[in-house]
Amino acid sequence: MLKFLRPIIYVCGILMLIMAGLMLSVALFAWIRQDPEMSVFLISAGLVSALGLIMVIGGRTQHFHLIARQLYLLTSLSWVMMSLAGALPLFFSHFELTFVNAVFEAVSGITTTGSTILVKIETLPPSLLLWRSLLQWLGGLGVVGMAVSILPFLRVGGMRLFHTESSDWSDKSMPRIQTLARMLLGTYLTISLACMLSYWWAGMSLFDAINHAMSTVSTGGYATDDRSMGRFDAPVLWISIAFMLLGAMPFTMLIGFARRPSLAALNNQQVKGLLLIVAAVSLALTAYLIEQGSHAPFDALTHATFNLVSVITTTGYASGDYTLWGAFSVALFFVVMFIGGCSGSTSGGMKVFRFQLSYLFLRSQVRKLVHPNGIFVTQYNGKPVSDDIILSAIAFSFLFFLCLAGFTLLLSMMGLDLVTSLTATATALTNVGPGLGPIVGPAGNFAGLPDAAKWLLSFAMLLGRLELLTMMVLFTPMFWRS
Amino acid sequence: MLKFLRPIIYVCGILMLIMAGLMLSVALFAWIRQDPEMSVFLISAGLVSALGLIMVIGGRTQHFHLIARQLYLLTSLSWVMMSLAGALPLFFSHFELTFVNAVFEAVSGITTTGSTILVKIETLPPSLLLWRSLLQWLGGLGVVGMAVSILPFLRVGGMRLFHTESSDWSDKSMPRIQTLARMLLGTYLTISLACMLSYWWAGMSLFDAINHAMSTVSTGGYATDDRSMGRFDAPVLWISIAFMLLGAMPFTMLIGFARRPSLAALNNQQVKGLLLIVAAVSLALTAYLIEQGSHAPFDALTHATFNLVSVITTTGYASGDYTLWGAFSVALFFVVMFIGGCSGSTSGGMKVFRFQLSYLFLRSQVRKLVHPNGIFVTQYNGKPVSDDIILSAIAFSFLFFLCLAGFTLLLSMMGLDLVTSLTATATALTNVGPGLGPIVGPAGNFAGLPDAAKWLLSFAMLLGRLELLTMMVLFTPMFWRS
Repeated sequence: MLKFLRPIIYVCGILMLIMAGLMLSVALFAWIRQDPEMSVFLISAGLVSALGLIMVIGGRTQHFHLIARQLYLLTSLSWVMMSLAGALPLFFSHFELTFVNAVFEAVSGITTTGSTILVKIETLPPSLLLWRSLLQWLGGLGVVGMAVSILPFLRVGGMRLFHTESSDWSDKSMPRIQTLARMLLGTYLTISLACMLSYWWAGMSLFDAINHAMSTVSTGGYATDDRSMGRFDAPVLWISIAFMLLGAMPFTMLIGFARRPSLAALNNQQVKGLLLIVAAVSLALTAYLIEQGSHAPFDALTHATFNLVSVITTTGYASGDYTLWGAFSVALFFVVMFIGGCSGSTSGGMKVFRFQLSYLFLRSQVRKLVHPNGIFVTQYNGKPVSDDIILSAIAFSFLFFLCLAGFTLLLSMMGLDLVTSLTATATALTNVGPGLGPIVGPAGNFAGLPDAAKWLLSFAMLLGRLELLTMMVLFTPMFWRS
Repeated sequence: MLKFLRPIIYVCGILMLIMAGLMLSVALFAWIRQDPEMSVFLISAGLVSALGLIMVIGGRTQHFHLIARQLYLLTSLSWVMMSLAGALPLFFSHFELTFVNAVFEAVSGITTTGSTILVKIETLPPSLLLWRSLLQWLGGLGVVGMAVSILPFLRVGGMRLFHTESSDWSDKSMPRIQTLARMLLGTYLTISLACMLSYWWAGMSLFDAINHAMSTVSTGGYATDDRSMGRFDAPVLWISIAFMLLGAMPFTMLIGFARRPSLAALNNQQVKGLLLIVAAVSLALTAYLIEQGSHAPFDALTHATFNLVSVITTTGYASGDYTLWGAFSVALFFVVMFIGGCSGSTSGGMKVFRFQLSYLFLRSQVRKLVHPNGIFVTQYNGKPVSDDIILSAIAFSFLFFLCLAGFTLLLSMMGLDLVTSLTATATALTNVGPGLGPIVGPAGNFAGLPDAAKWLLSFAMLLGRLELLTMMVLFTPMFWRS
C-alpha cells in the first residue's frame, strides 16, 4: 500500500511547493503595494511549504512507474489538495470568510469555474484579487496538462481518442513528457502575455489587464469588479472573445501550430465544430436581439457573441444580465451551457468531440439501415475510431445527465427552486460560472446559498473538472479491493 | 417505388378501417345515450372507411415481405394517419375546436400522452369522452404491438435487445406473428377488463370506470374531469397505481406469465429495476411530505406514490397539484419524468433498460480499470449483450437530450419561459402528459399555448412515441436515396 501511495504523495508534495511559491510571489506583490494582507500570504506559504516538504521527503522513491489506478488517485487528490491550499489565504484574510466560503471560492477558482461568493469584489485588496486570478490561471494550466498527459491514458469519457505516444507513463517516456510540459507551459505563457498586452492596449489598467488575462486564457471568468466585464467597451469584449476561444482550443494543436505555423496544423475537426456552433448561435441571438428592438445591430452582435462565447467556452464572464433579454435568450444560455470547448483545452463542459462522435455514430446507424450489409468505419480527424471509444464518450454524456439529476434533487431538498437547483448544478458540473435565476444568475451571487449547497457545488465543480469518472471511481469498492 | 409503397398503403388502410369501426361503435353508443354528437361519428366513420377502402384496394399485393426501410415508413405513417383520423370527430363536434386543437388532442390521445387542450372536460358529451379514452386504449395497444414486433427488428435505440424469433418479418413467420398478436390482444383486454371492474367495485360509475380503465392500462392519463383523479379516494388511487404499473410492464412477460403462471416468469431485470425506482422515490417523497407537515402519513404515502407512479409510468394523472408540495417535489417530478416504464409496455420515456445498460457499461469500465487485462461480458436478463446494442441504447439518451434542447429553444422563441418550454418538451417527448409551471403544469391547460407550439408538441409526442429514430430517419436524404 505504501509503495502504491509513495509517488502520489511525492507529486502532491511538489504541487504544494509550487502553491507555496505562488503565495510567496503574491506576498512580495503585497509588500510592494503595502497591502495589509501580506502576512496572510506569508503564513499560508509557510504552512503549505511545510506540508509540501514533508510529503516530498516522505514520498521519495526510486521507482516511478505509475499504473492507471495510481493516476486516478493522484489526479483527484492533487485537485482537492490544491483547492484546500488555495483556500487558506482567503480563509485567513481580514475579510473573515467562513471556511466553506473560502473553500468554495478556491475550488471555483482552481477548477476555472468562476462562480463567486464575494460581494463588492472591487473593494478587495489587490493581493486577494491577484490570488483569485492566479488560482484560475494555475487551474487552467493544470487542466490542460491533465487532459494532454493523463486523461488519454485512462478509460474516462472517450478521452482515449486523444491517446498519443507521449501519453505513456513509464520511466522511458519521461523525457518526452518533460518536453511536452515545457512546450505547453511556453504556449500557455505566450498566450497569457498576448492577452494581457491586448487588454492593456485596449484601455484596461495594467493590474486589471493582468488579472483578466489570467482568467480569460484559463476560461475561468473571475473579474475584479461586481459588474464582471460590463464596465468595458466593445474593443475589450472582442479581444476577450478571441482569447476565450483560444483558451477553448486543443493545446496540442496550438503547440503544433507554434512549432510549424501552417493552415494544415489548424485543420482540426473539433475546432471547426466549435467555431461553427459559436457562429450559429451568436448570429441567431443577434438576430433575435435586433428583432426585439432592444439593441442596435453592432451592439447586439458584440454582446450576443461575447456572452455566448463566455458560456460556451465555460469562462463565465458577463457583459450584462442576459437573462433579461427575453425567453429565447434564457433558454439559449441554458442549452449552450452544456456544450463546452474542445478537449485538451482549459474549458469544461461536455466538449464538442462528444457531440461529434454521437452524430457520427447516429449517421452510421442510418447508413446501416439503408445498406444492412455495408461495413462503415467511423472516422474522426481522419483516423478510425473504435466502438469502445464512442461508447465511452456517449456514456459520459449519460453519466453527466445522471449527475445533473442527482445534484439537482439534493439542492432542491435544501429548498432551492427548480431553476436555481438545475442551473447551479449545470454551471458547476460544466465549470461555467453563472447559472440562471436571481441567486445564481449572472446578476446574482452564490453567497446566498446555504452552506450545504456550497459544499455540494464545490464537489460538483471538482467532479466536472475531472471528467466525472476520474473521481467517481474512487468511490467504488472495486477500486480499493485489489 | 410503387412496389415499395403498396404494402405500406395496404396496412395503413386496414388501420383506417379499424378506426372507422371504432367510430361506428361510439356512434352506436351515442345513439343509445341520445347524444347529439352521433352524426359527428357517423360522418367521420364514413370518411375514414372510404379512405381505408381505397387504400386497401389500391395497396393489395401478393408479395408481403417487408424490409427494414418499409417498416420505418409504415410505422411513422400509420401513427400520423391514426392521429389525423382520430382528430376528425373532435374537429367536427359541436365544440368548434380549431383544427390544431383537434389534432393536438388526438395526437396526445393516440400517443398515450394525455396532455389536453380541453377545459371543463366534465361538461363534454359522453361520446366524446369515450372517444378520447378509446384513442388512448388503441394507442396503448398499438405501442405494445410495435414494441414487441417491429422495433426489435430495427436499429433503434437498443431495442434489438428484445429481438426474438417472432421479430422476423417474412411470409414464413406470419403465423407466429398472428399468434403473438392474438395473445397480446387477449392479455391487454383481460387487464383492461380487470381494471374496469376494480374501479367500478371501488365506487366509480360504470362510465367513469370504463374510461379510466382504458386510459390507465394504456398509461395514457385522460380523465373525465378537470380535477383528473383528484375527486377519488385512496382505494381508487391504489387500484390505479397497480394497473398503471401493470401497463408499464413488458407485455411479453405478462403473456408468458398468463401461459405458465410461475414466479420464474416474473424474474425480469427491467421490472425489478422499475419497481425499485418506484419504491425508492415514493418513500423519499412520502418522508419529505410528512416532514413538511403538509400530509398525514397514509395520505402522504398514497398521494406521493400515486402521482410519482403516474409520471414514471408516463400516465400523467394527478391527484392534486404536486407542484405546490415544495421545491424538492417539483425537482423530483421533473427528474422522474424522464425515466419511463419498461420496454415493450404501453409507457413512454427513456425506459428503464437504457439506464440499466448504461450502469452495466460504466461498471465494466471500472472493472477494466482495476483488471486491465480482464475480459468482461455485459449480461442483461442472463444473456450477453453486444457493445453495439449498448451503444444504440446510450446513443438514444444522447439524441433524446438533443431533441429536448432543440424543441425547448423553438418553444422559447415563441415567448414561453424556460420552465414551460423545457417541461412541455420533456412531457411531450416522454409521453407523460403534464409538465411544470402555470400553463403546462398539472393544474394548467395546454390550451393557453400558441398554435405553433401545439403543432411542435404534437410532432414531439409522435417522435417520442416512435423512439425518435424510427421517425427521424425519414428526414434524412440517405433514407430516400436508394
